[in-house]
Amino acid sequence: MNAEDIFRNIQRKKSYLCIGLDTDYDKIPRTLMENEYPIFEFNKRIIDATHDLAVAYKPNIAFYESMGAAGYMSLEMTVTYIRSRYPDMFIIADAKRGDIGNTSRMYANAYFRTLDCDAITLSPYMGYDSISPFLEVPGKWAVILVLTSNEGSKDFQQLVVEGDRHLFEQVISTTSGWGTVNNVMYVVGATRISELRLIRRMIPEHFLLVPGVGTQGGELFDVAEHGMNDRCGLLVNASRSIIYADVTDKFAEAAREQAALIREQMENTLKRRKII
Amino acid sequence: MNAEDIFRNIQRKKSYLCIGLDTDYDKIPRTLMENEYPIFEFNKRIIDATHDLAVAYKPNIAFYESMGAAGYMSLEMTVTYIRSRYPDMFIIADAKRGDIGNTSRMYANAYFRTLDCDAITLSPYMGYDSISPFLEVPGKWAVILVLTSNEGSKDFQQLVVEGDRHLFEQVISTTSGWGTVNNVMYVVGATRISELRLIRRMIPEHFLLVPGVGTQGGELFDVAEHGMNDRCGLLVNASRSIIYADVTDKFAEAAREQAALIREQMENTLKRRKII
Repeated sequence: MNAEDIFRNIQRKKSYLCIGLDTDYDKIPRTLMENEYPIFEFNKRIIDATHDLAVAYKPNIAFYESMGAAGYMSLEMTVTYIRSRYPDMFIIADAKRGDIGNTSRMYANAYFRTLDCDAITLSPYMGYDSISPFLEVPGKWAVILVLTSNEGSKDFQQLVVEGDRHLFEQVISTTSGWGTVNNVMYVVGATRISELRLIRRMIPEHFLLVPGVGTQGGELFDVAEHGMNDRCGLLVNASRSIIYADVTDKFAEAAREQAALIREQMENTLKRRKII
Repeated sequence: MNAEDIFRNIQRKKSYLCIGLDTDYDKIPRTLMENEYPIFEFNKRIIDATHDLAVAYKPNIAFYESMGAAGYMSLEMTVTYIRSRYPDMFIIADAKRGDIGNTSRMYANAYFRTLDCDAITLSPYMGYDSISPFLEVPGKWAVILVLTSNEGSKDFQQLVVEGDRHLFEQVISTTSGWGTVNNVMYVVGATRISELRLIRRMIPEHFLLVPGVGTQGGELFDVAEHGMNDRCGLLVNASRSIIYADVTDKFAEAAREQAALIREQMENTLKRRKII
């Protein structure tokens, strides 16, 4: 999938919503436990209830790994289900990987071949050869961490480096030449509004993946105001505020309601910006 | 396991060798394919042939993830096998993880509870709350990336930051207060000898995990010369040079020979430094 394909889906669905599948065994309804793979069953119902409102799903790999082999099976089944049932969906493995070349190549195999995801989130700390193996797979995306929404982002990401800019700016400036607008996007937390404006100026055309709307406190309106470009250029993620909107057997309907509210705001913004 | 336990194992085995289990399905002997879990079978034979020569094993998680659910099963079986058969062995999940707090907590569950590893390698880019969940589990270790052996380490790790030092120095200075010498160690590539001396001066007591001896070109002698402290303070990893020393059915014997050569050099150094 390239940037134009993503943009066409955004126009068609009037939405740039990405739904995070941070599926926690301890938070899903007990009635799902009768299924062999309750995590998958939960995801399947969330996906069926929201697929027309979202352009992307983002399974958070930690939640599946924490369940061992059964968790891995649920992840595999989830990706396969989305891929077969909703083939235009963009699937982001939220994995924050990155290692020396031969190891990153194995992670690329894991997420782009063994699992047929479209994209994977990556930590830039180890530099070029930790990212490039992901860029070598045609049609697949590296989603590089820039400035995250958590408190700890000040520890290193916001340090001033040589050239009198922040490390997160240097990450953009160094990495934006490694790929193209068709295989690199960047993670910018929704709580970082003033920096979002700066980042959008540095990379006017790249897609930004913006988590942190909802539970982490970011505001959708501000994100659109400062992060949107004329091809939208945004995927805004919400996880817990959608998938745990209700903890009873009505969770899928409640998730749909929450996702619909966000999508409606997105449609308004897209119209105001004359993108649809 | 605390630092003193690791040191006692080093003294007893006269070795500070960590063996990296970067087990690649395409590189193991074809005769192993008759087993249901050939990756596990390969690991089991390597471990049985080398357990008295090494104090630690380091499965590289990418290699298991790339095989999907079957790979995950092989990883689980490998960790369980080491834990039950060689209970004093230190097991490092080489995973390079790190995410916002609630997600890092899930990774801690994955590697410290679902799998009973002793330690996990972590990328520091996301800061304090991405590391702290791993430090909250008693007896378990965070192994933080500082300066890696790959070419790309120059892209960010070696940038000069405010205070006129390199980012990797800042990572040490910031993170060394987050835990203790009993639950934090650092990754320093074996090819970074002059920086290794500097790092050892900054943190005289912490254990350093040093990969890159062997295939990646680092020299064991120099690493010991500049990285060792009076409680050894080093775990030196070799992966491919040991586990793929021979690609026939004699792979386990060949791995033992290579590991024995390294261990002998280590014993000489430990004696010269009067540590044993």
